[in-house]
Amino acid sequence: MKIVLDAMGGDFAPRNEVQGAIDALKGDANLEIILVGNKNILDKELAKHELNSRISIVDAPERISMKELPTQAIKKDNSSLMTAIRVLKNGEADALVSSGNTGALLAGSVLKLGRIKNVDRPAIVAVFLTMSKPLVALDLGANVDCKPRQLFQFAKMGSIYSKSRFGIANPKVRLLNIGEEETKGNEALIETHKLLKEEKDINFLGNLEPFYLLNSDTDVVVCDGFVGNVVLKLGEGMISNIFSMIKNTVKKSIFSIFGSIFMLPSLKKIKKKFDYDEFGGTLLIGVKKPVLKAHGSASPKAIMNAIKEATIMGRENVVDTIKVALADDDSETSKEG
Amino acid sequence: MKIVLDAMGGDFAPRNEVQGAIDALKGDANLEIILVGNKNILDKELAKHELNSRISIVDAPERISMKELPTQAIKKDNSSLMTAIRVLKNGEADALVSSGNTGALLAGSVLKLGRIKNVDRPAIVAVFLTMSKPLVALDLGANVDCKPRQLFQFAKMGSIYSKSRFGIANPKVRLLNIGEEETKGNEALIETHKLLKEEKDINFLGNLEPFYLLNSDTDVVVCDGFVGNVVLKLGEGMISNIFSMIKNTVKKSIFSIFGSIFMLPSLKKIKKKFDYDEFGGTLLIGVKKPVLKAHGSASPKAIMNAIKEATIMGRENVVDTIKVALADDDSETSKEG
Repeated sequence: MKIVLDAMGGDFAPRNEVQGAIDALKGDANLEIILVGNKNILDKELAKHELNSRISIVDAPERISMKELPTQAIKKDNSSLMTAIRVLKNGEADALVSSGNTGALLAGSVLKLGRIKNVDRPAIVAVFLTMSKPLVALDLGANVDCKPRQLFQFAKMGSIYSKSRFGIANPKVRLLNIGEEETKGNEALIETHKLLKEEKDINFLGNLEPFYLLNSDTDVVVCDGFVGNVVLKLGEGMISNIFSMIKNTVKKSIFSIFGSIFMLPSLKKIKKKFDYDEFGGTLLIGVKKPVLKAHGSASPKAIMNAIKEATIMGRENVVDTIKVALADDDSETSKEG
Repeated sequence: MKIVLDAMGGDFAPRNEVQGAIDALKGDANLEIILVGNKNILDKELAKHELNSRISIVDAPERISMKELPTQAIKKDNSSLMTAIRVLKNGEADALVSSGNTGALLAGSVLKLGRIKNVDRPAIVAVFLTMSKPLVALDLGANVDCKPRQLFQFAKMGSIYSKSRFGIANPKVRLLNIGEEETKGNEALIETHKLLKEEKDINFLGNLEPFYLLNSDTDVVVCDGFVGNVVLKLGEGMISNIFSMIKNTVKKSIFSIFGSIFMLPSLKKIKKKFDYDEFGGTLLIGVKKPVLKAHGSASPKAIMNAIKEATIMGRENVVDTIKVALADDDSETSKEG
């Protein structure tokens, strides 16, 4: 398996990227990694590590910043990101990992790799450990104002991903909604509910209320990218606030220090339940090749996890399975518009 | 101050309602409470307590269940809820408290009390303590698919409420959105952003990202009722999951028991940050009289808090202030549609 890594994308690039790549190679003898970025800088960074014949460099002198507008960014042909996408497109690698500008990665991937047939819009997917089982959630921010047809396609892609990634035979799919009844929610959701009920290839079980998001038997939860992004960021914010409150309490009394020593392991466990970095970040689903997006501030461990996840995506042929399933799609939904 | 209480609304009615009313009377010598519900049942419940001349009963034999559709429920003229609304409308009380069916309370209030001039749709408001200051949040579920004009009105009402309830001279108002830039978010938010920027009576400071919801200098945050309800329920769910995980850990080891003893006070403090019951539940804003909605499962303490909050609403003339501010509203926004 060959992974192409945008080595200049993240906030701590290329240090964390290179470290993550080296660590990933150690854990997988069949892995090869192509680092993309300024060759001089990457050579220097690599020199800090033992020589590894399974790592190579593709020179790309330019860099896309986190603040750059996607429309501008994708014009930078010699940037590490756009070059990495080209390497993937040309078949020189099986999957791509970047911790760079999300909008640019999204726009660049759609433009250069193309959308899978019958996918109107690619979505951002994350996997949360939750209280009981891995939960595939999409869209987490690629699209706002999603149409029922798009939400329907997200459900389909999410279901196939859950099958091929986690081996779940008949993934339980639900819509994130503010009530159980099918008449609840906004217009787009009520319409999507109807479409999903009629679709035989999806094990659709109705709505999932946000209260139960981290504690249900759901395998795939579908929502508009705006709502998904709110959920993602609110969850991260709450956990961050809880940890900082605990730190403040600990400073105040010796008893709390004792308390925190015993409680911290379980609090860290809780943090993991909402931490999609366990699966290397997020996945861009709906484009013709596997593209993974690690956090901008990804640690070497997160980069390594993202590379691992990318190899799984490649090995399990997740993208090809989605292609086949959606190409064969002869439902009315796919024919519309 | 006279409060009318739907004494048969909640899951534990009338026990918690009556207990909460008795407790509220003890803390406020100028308070009178009208209990509405089946007189026989209420007489029996009241007999468990000391006689109090400031409590009275209005008989209403029927009851609206939590599952009843609002359209059906509002036809039940003799229900405790609809009778309580009538008592409020007739001026026999200054504010209403119910822990009953939210949809029925909303529909009944709009139908019988009427909307304030220049308010297209009333909203559900809650106050969160957050990390630093009380945060007024609306809409939390009264409306889905909100138009820019409605979101604009929510901002206006929220700002006035923040002023009169918390004495904040120039409340900082923000839109809940997935990015800071004014071009971020869905169409409704981008348009609302423009309207708010042009409005001199609102101290509009742009977007608030969900990561910072519980930790910012914002006084009023505005969102669509669908998004607001997701935020509310996800937050409650996450806190509930965290507490149950801690309980499970505690069972497993003696060290965790020690840990939890020292940590629990600070964890409870965290829970409070997201617990709008501190302010007695939610408020229905935009109808012509003060209407408060306590949790369906409200404890006597929560009922008491809701009654306290209702007296503040009455005393501070919050609803009248909104009426005046919006009646004078000669902005283009209010004239449209």
